[in-house]
Amino acid sequence: MPSYQAPLRDMRFVMNEMFDYPSHYAALPNGEEASPDVVGAILEEGARFARDVLLPLNQSGDEEGCLLEGGEVKAPRGFKEAYQQYVEGGWPSLAADPEQGGQGLPPSLAMMLSEMICATNLAWGMYPGLSHGAADALRHHGTDAQKATYLTKLVEGVWTGTMCLTEPHCGTDLGLIKTRAVPAEGDAYQITGTKIFISAGEHNLAENIVHLVLAKLPDAPEGSKGISLFVVPKFLPDAEGNPGQRNGVSCGSLEHKMGIHGNATCVMNFDGATGYLVGAPNKGLACMFTMMNAARLGVGIQGLGLMEASFQNSLGYARDRLQMRGLSGVQAPDKAADPIIVHPDVRRMLLTQKAFAEGGRMLVLYTAQMLDVVEHGAAGEEKERAETLLGLLTPIVKAFLTEVGFECTNEGVQIFGGHGFIKEWGMEQLVRDARITRLYEGTTGIQALDLLGRKVLMSQGESLKVFTKEIHKFCQAEADNPALKEFIEPLAKLNAQWGELTMGIGMKAMQDREEVGAASVDYLMYSGYVAVAYLFARAAKQAASAQGGEDAAFYTAKLNTARFYYQRLLPRTKAHAAMIQAGAGSLMAISSEDFGLGFEI
Amino acid sequence: MPSYQAPLRDMRFVMNEMFDYPSHYAALPNGEEASPDVVGAILEEGARFARDVLLPLNQSGDEEGCLLEGGEVKAPRGFKEAYQQYVEGGWPSLAADPEQGGQGLPPSLAMMLSEMICATNLAWGMYPGLSHGAADALRHHGTDAQKATYLTKLVEGVWTGTMCLTEPHCGTDLGLIKTRAVPAEGDAYQITGTKIFISAGEHNLAENIVHLVLAKLPDAPEGSKGISLFVVPKFLPDAEGNPGQRNGVSCGSLEHKMGIHGNATCVMNFDGATGYLVGAPNKGLACMFTMMNAARLGVGIQGLGLMEASFQNSLGYARDRLQMRGLSGVQAPDKAADPIIVHPDVRRMLLTQKAFAEGGRMLVLYTAQMLDVVEHGAAGEEKERAETLLGLLTPIVKAFLTEVGFECTNEGVQIFGGHGFIKEWGMEQLVRDARITRLYEGTTGIQALDLLGRKVLMSQGESLKVFTKEIHKFCQAEADNPALKEFIEPLAKLNAQWGELTMGIGMKAMQDREEVGAASVDYLMYSGYVAVAYLFARAAKQAASAQGGEDAAFYTAKLNTARFYYQRLLPRTKAHAAMIQAGAGSLMAISSEDFGLGFEI
Repeated sequence: MPSYQAPLRDMRFVMNEMFDYPSHYAALPNGEEASPDVVGAILEEGARFARDVLLPLNQSGDEEGCLLEGGEVKAPRGFKEAYQQYVEGGWPSLAADPEQGGQGLPPSLAMMLSEMICATNLAWGMYPGLSHGAADALRHHGTDAQKATYLTKLVEGVWTGTMCLTEPHCGTDLGLIKTRAVPAEGDAYQITGTKIFISAGEHNLAENIVHLVLAKLPDAPEGSKGISLFVVPKFLPDAEGNPGQRNGVSCGSLEHKMGIHGNATCVMNFDGATGYLVGAPNKGLACMFTMMNAARLGVGIQGLGLMEASFQNSLGYARDRLQMRGLSGVQAPDKAADPIIVHPDVRRMLLTQKAFAEGGRMLVLYTAQMLDVVEHGAAGEEKERAETLLGLLTPIVKAFLTEVGFECTNEGVQIFGGHGFIKEWGMEQLVRDARITRLYEGTTGIQALDLLGRKVLMSQGESLKVFTKEIHKFCQAEADNPALKEFIEPLAKLNAQWGELTMGIGMKAMQDREEVGAASVDYLMYSGYVAVAYLFARAAKQAASAQGGEDAAFYTAKLNTARFYYQRLLPRTKAHAAMIQAGAGSLMAISSEDFGLGFEI
Repeated sequence: MPSYQAPLRDMRFVMNEMFDYPSHYAALPNGEEASPDVVGAILEEGARFARDVLLPLNQSGDEEGCLLEGGEVKAPRGFKEAYQQYVEGGWPSLAADPEQGGQGLPPSLAMMLSEMICATNLAWGMYPGLSHGAADALRHHGTDAQKATYLTKLVEGVWTGTMCLTEPHCGTDLGLIKTRAVPAEGDAYQITGTKIFISAGEHNLAENIVHLVLAKLPDAPEGSKGISLFVVPKFLPDAEGNPGQRNGVSCGSLEHKMGIHGNATCVMNFDGATGYLVGAPNKGLACMFTMMNAARLGVGIQGLGLMEASFQNSLGYARDRLQMRGLSGVQAPDKAADPIIVHPDVRRMLLTQKAFAEGGRMLVLYTAQMLDVVEHGAAGEEKERAETLLGLLTPIVKAFLTEVGFECTNEGVQIFGGHGFIKEWGMEQLVRDARITRLYEGTTGIQALDLLGRKVLMSQGESLKVFTKEIHKFCQAEADNPALKEFIEPLAKLNAQWGELTMGIGMKAMQDREEVGAASVDYLMYSGYVAVAYLFARAAKQAASAQGGEDAAFYTAKLNTARFYYQRLLPRTKAHAAMIQAGAGSLMAISSEDFGLGFEI
């Protein structure tokens, strides 16, 4: 069975040594609760829960999958008990508002716990995971009565939530949805329609499920401007707020999927189900983005967790597996062959995992600080800046970390050789589980359009400048630091090029809107590489200044990881830059009909 | 269910229009049999067999998998009947030696059929697929009696073959094998040991199975110089050559794998099984490479087939699925939304599949001509040249086509969005099936060491020069062709850089052997991109000169595909070149112990 230890030392490095989380937390309202001691204790307790409770259920959950019987879904063996422990431990309410019974700790802290959960059991993690989005939507857009009825239960974790958006004929293009909401008694509506790909849509972990459902009111405007959001509970709460009458919503079937078998991905049938409007009529898309943005960060963290899990197990295997002698001579003369970690190409793969996991963690914790300020900070310039950066970085966190996360889980299989393909070792499950992260909550292509189109170009590049200026200042400040020369020089160039590429696309897009789509994914990947390069340069600065002492080996390894990232991963920006500059021409040249002339008769 | 049409038009373009296969075949002994009409008819018949017989069994085979009961393995429903049809159709003997009952057609032709089989049912294709390697080993190294007993049956397809190399503790490093061969009565040996990952090791498709087994003789030298090859039949042939007494070899268990579920991947126990030496004692490794090289080309073709399959179905989906409007305006005003093929990023993914599939086909058919000459051509300069090119290109075909093949099957999932993750659509199966191709018959890392270490550097770069000279001549000849300027200029530069990079590695490697391993995979990928770029330039030349006429749209699409390849895929060489030049330093810096300091306590 795969093993896992939460990377607590690395988390401490990023939180305390790089980003000064102690001061950051202290400056937040309620921040005194998040003292370094408390944070440390929570992370350690979470690490134990993930390792001891969730990890042992990961492979068995994958093998068993979920069972739909008589309309009820049974999650794999042990999932329900683990969820009970999770609720009893108070984990769901960690970062929730004290007004709704939450502990009021900063969301960034919950994100580090989320990394551990995703690393050990992604399928399980999606049962409580979706509740956050539903809770966010209710917190921001729900009435006081809705908050009292649903939000408190979601925060406690005794009920879980879903996001019911996708329908068979539409996922990305939600303007096409067919689910209808017809006014009924009082403030109720009757919801009718079919939703697909509903994670945790039906299960036996919690006593009730709160569906957040997109539907159209009668006479709603066409397209995305005519979408409204409704809350539709599985059991209608009774007068005491406990689950009462069964509502007209049920699971029609479970999807058979490539991965995350332990999670129930449901077709949900709404058959005149009773629902209540959340937010204003026809403004459901805005409410949905509230859920979606939280969910997108969450999916990026899934990529991070999965690569860390793959890295740790690959490292163990690479140290144990004996195969061939080192190219420059025998390394382990007492053994029949050398451990494969001596081979440079195995090291290249391990370092790819290590660098992306550590880089991803920095990116998440950098973005998480912005989220803390947006959620809890006082209005003002700092909050505005945090909002801009959060908006800019959310699609990068989501898409970049899931793209490289998938790559890293595949490196894990590759390091295991043929054994990586065998289920027993657990490495191929990480690949199958990781595959969905590039798709759900908006594919990489959609994230890329969000980044380049909505975030960067719509602001005339201003949102990007907030970030590139910060990088520029850092480069200027360290320009004369000889220890950082190898990082600052390439970073400054790439940072300048980032702006130039943006300008170039903007100019071309004025002539031809297709240029935005043509450049978008390469632009997102370029952005991800440079953002992580900036953070590795800061890590290198920290590590260089902290060298010596009892953690000397840790800092040296960190410096060398930064070096590897700059020398062996960052050059990929050269390719992305060239492909961005190549433009849309070669993409648009072949007609739909002529695409298949090689095989169509 | 996924659909498939063999890309006959594209095959004709490459074979007849680009590489003049008619003359190539005519120049081979027995070549008059391979007239364009015969070749065309065989390809069309093969296309029907793949589409009508194999494709319908692909998803069901994946779902059912294989069953081990009482030592017997049952392949999925329909596999046995399809195999009977395959044998009755004379397919196994197509390219085999007439002396052993083969049809004596060139191996290149069998490779195009193999593409179709891999595209429609890889798991099935591995039952007959492994026989070729076993047959090759016997043909080259077997005694006349062994040929009479085993080879004829393998050629007919009434028996199938395996390659029993890997053991639990060693795959790449076969010098470590523990299986023993002890002399017994007459020329027989008793073979004892355990082999794992044996594809088609046991099954119900054929009446006998011929295992080619690596084992060590008593007092054999240590390591890879002490390996011998044995033929070990499942049933010992009786006096008439029919399956007689059951031999002491049996399937201990079946592996549970990420993909190719329909193929039986067996743990094989040899328990004093009777075997016969093939080739000279302790020279088994050379015999094994005979099998291995054929198998490596075969695996590259698996990558090709899978990407073509993914491309075709992605194209169909992209034309049908309606989602969002085109960025530059409505494209299908009569529909609720535009088909997603209008979106540039969807086109980028489709074109990536199309360009790699067409590029891969050119690379396979270029290499296949060399194989034809090596197998059938008369001794002389041309044959020597073909041997050099075949040796150089085999690891590139194997590793490059499986790496980009995996990428392309993943693009297929991405184009399908969330539906790509659902089993029903068949796209995720292609990913799972493709995943093994990067591993078996030598991982990408092993192919890369073969290319850079054995093939290029060991020949002081001479083998590479044979190929780069050809490219150089082509670039010179077309230097003044304005229609090809956009291809020739970058190709000439990359070709020159290929030599420079090689020299650079060679120089560094004289100081430090680790530099070879550190550069190897990036070098292999760089080589693959440039080789395919050369072939796309030739395709563009052909298409440019053939424009007009009734196939004008085909040639225009080909030119545009070449353009896409040059503009949007070939720039990846920039990254690979930079990573090669970065050297081994950052890979070797961190000690095995310090790799895990972020999480190990």
